[in-house]
Amino acid sequence: MMKTALAEDRRRDPAAMRRVIRAGGFPHPTAGLAPGYVQCNLLILPAADADEFAAYCAANPAACPVLARGAAGDPRLPSLGNDLDLRTDLGSYRVFRDGAVAGDVPDISDLWRDDFVAFAFGCSFSFEEALSTEGVALRYLDRGDREAIYLSTLETTPVGRFAAPTILSMRPLRPADAIRAIGVTSKYPGVHGAPVHIGLPEAIGVDIDKPMQTLGTCRVLPDELPLFWACGVTPQMALSAAKLPICITHTSAHMLLTDVRLADLAA
Amino acid sequence: MMKTALAEDRRRDPAAMRRVIRAGGFPHPTAGLAPGYVQCNLLILPAADADEFAAYCAANPAACPVLARGAAGDPRLPSLGNDLDLRTDLGSYRVFRDGAVAGDVPDISDLWRDDFVAFAFGCSFSFEEALSTEGVALRYLDRGDREAIYLSTLETTPVGRFAAPTILSMRPLRPADAIRAIGVTSKYPGVHGAPVHIGLPEAIGVDIDKPMQTLGTCRVLPDELPLFWACGVTPQMALSAAKLPICITHTSAHMLLTDVRLADLAA
Repeated sequence: MMKTALAEDRRRDPAAMRRVIRAGGFPHPTAGLAPGYVQCNLLILPAADADEFAAYCAANPAACPVLARGAAGDPRLPSLGNDLDLRTDLGSYRVFRDGAVAGDVPDISDLWRDDFVAFAFGCSFSFEEALSTEGVALRYLDRGDREAIYLSTLETTPVGRFAAPTILSMRPLRPADAIRAIGVTSKYPGVHGAPVHIGLPEAIGVDIDKPMQTLGTCRVLPDELPLFWACGVTPQMALSAAKLPICITHTSAHMLLTDVRLADLAA
Repeated sequence: MMKTALAEDRRRDPAAMRRVIRAGGFPHPTAGLAPGYVQCNLLILPAADADEFAAYCAANPAACPVLARGAAGDPRLPSLGNDLDLRTDLGSYRVFRDGAVAGDVPDISDLWRDDFVAFAFGCSFSFEEALSTEGVALRYLDRGDREAIYLSTLETTPVGRFAAPTILSMRPLRPADAIRAIGVTSKYPGVHGAPVHIGLPEAIGVDIDKPMQTLGTCRVLPDELPLFWACGVTPQMALSAAKLPICITHTSAHMLLTDVRLADLAA
């Protein structure tokens, strides 16, 4: 009993979970860990490319909500967690070379360079919790569905070498819940904010039966509307398209756990 | 030139327009008058019925957003305008006896009683202005359409003798504008707040081709979604169903002009 209670305490504490991950003890997706705290998408690239990439993010805040930017060569982001070390604190990293995936690694201490600049982005992993707390009925979770990821024809605003279509995460909701969900997520621009589309997927080039990626099934029932939020895969696509000699991101679903409470991000 | 400028100034000033209406000089719909100020639906009923009606409104705030309630016998609502006199300051009043329309009159000084209690409700006349100011494209206005009014199967919460289906005003918007409109109107619960439905009219018993009332044409184009807001006709229906011996409302579109700025109502 005692052991389980401690383990559960640890799963709820982002700093404790970072220490577990740092020691190599949790090479798994981070969904459900540290409820109430913001989980982040991570992108690391050379300083020479950082300002242009930052300008791309500023031009596309819904897809690229930057919560923190590190100094060149500094693997810390103290505003997200005092002891946080970007070289070790993710369960899995994806390394890109010349825009192509070179492989996934559990630690980037050996790859870290004096000119690396890190960007952490708010991600919608915390969405469902905020929605549920504010009375939005998430029937799709109850029936075992998960959000689905789509490629859309909504182009982001290109800056320099960075350009990409907007990648969207879709959640199906009944109309009254959709309205509440728009109100709730509007308050959190730091984790993608309000949806960018509702109800007419073909208008944004989406075939609802053809997601780019799924985390399970995702059906839209006849009494529901599909809601589409800008997704953190978008800046990854832009980085990939720019074919930088090297960049590093989190591996899908292996997020950076932060000490920032979602409630403190409310606008 | 001078005369036209003065007239335009007067049309923009709610207190000046009330004086004109009080003198019998403007028996017309008030749409477009006093931009930036809240126009109100008015309901007057005997004190014996007022508390039950107030409870009905409290149970149904989207349909019945009470901005002010008068004291018994008092024809003033000073929180909405210092000099405001409810017996004279509307261009046209509708008198109901036993729940049926008994007629429209330009003045209720002779009908006023020592036990009359007035309720003023925020109305969505000011919506379009707030939406437009915040960047929502109102294409339906540009093409000459207006909002349409529908009877729905969404029942209000009944209280005592007061019960009614929710009457809705519908505006068609493109998805991205619909999302912005939900965000904007959420901030104004005093003028009906966020819509109560979007996108699936049949789910709320609405045949889009059969409005209850129109102010002109109102088409929903293929790239638009219909948005439905709770409408101030709802409490009128509830009053009518209660078959009170007497009650008095504004005549449709002949609203009470107030000195309250819409911006000051933002939550």
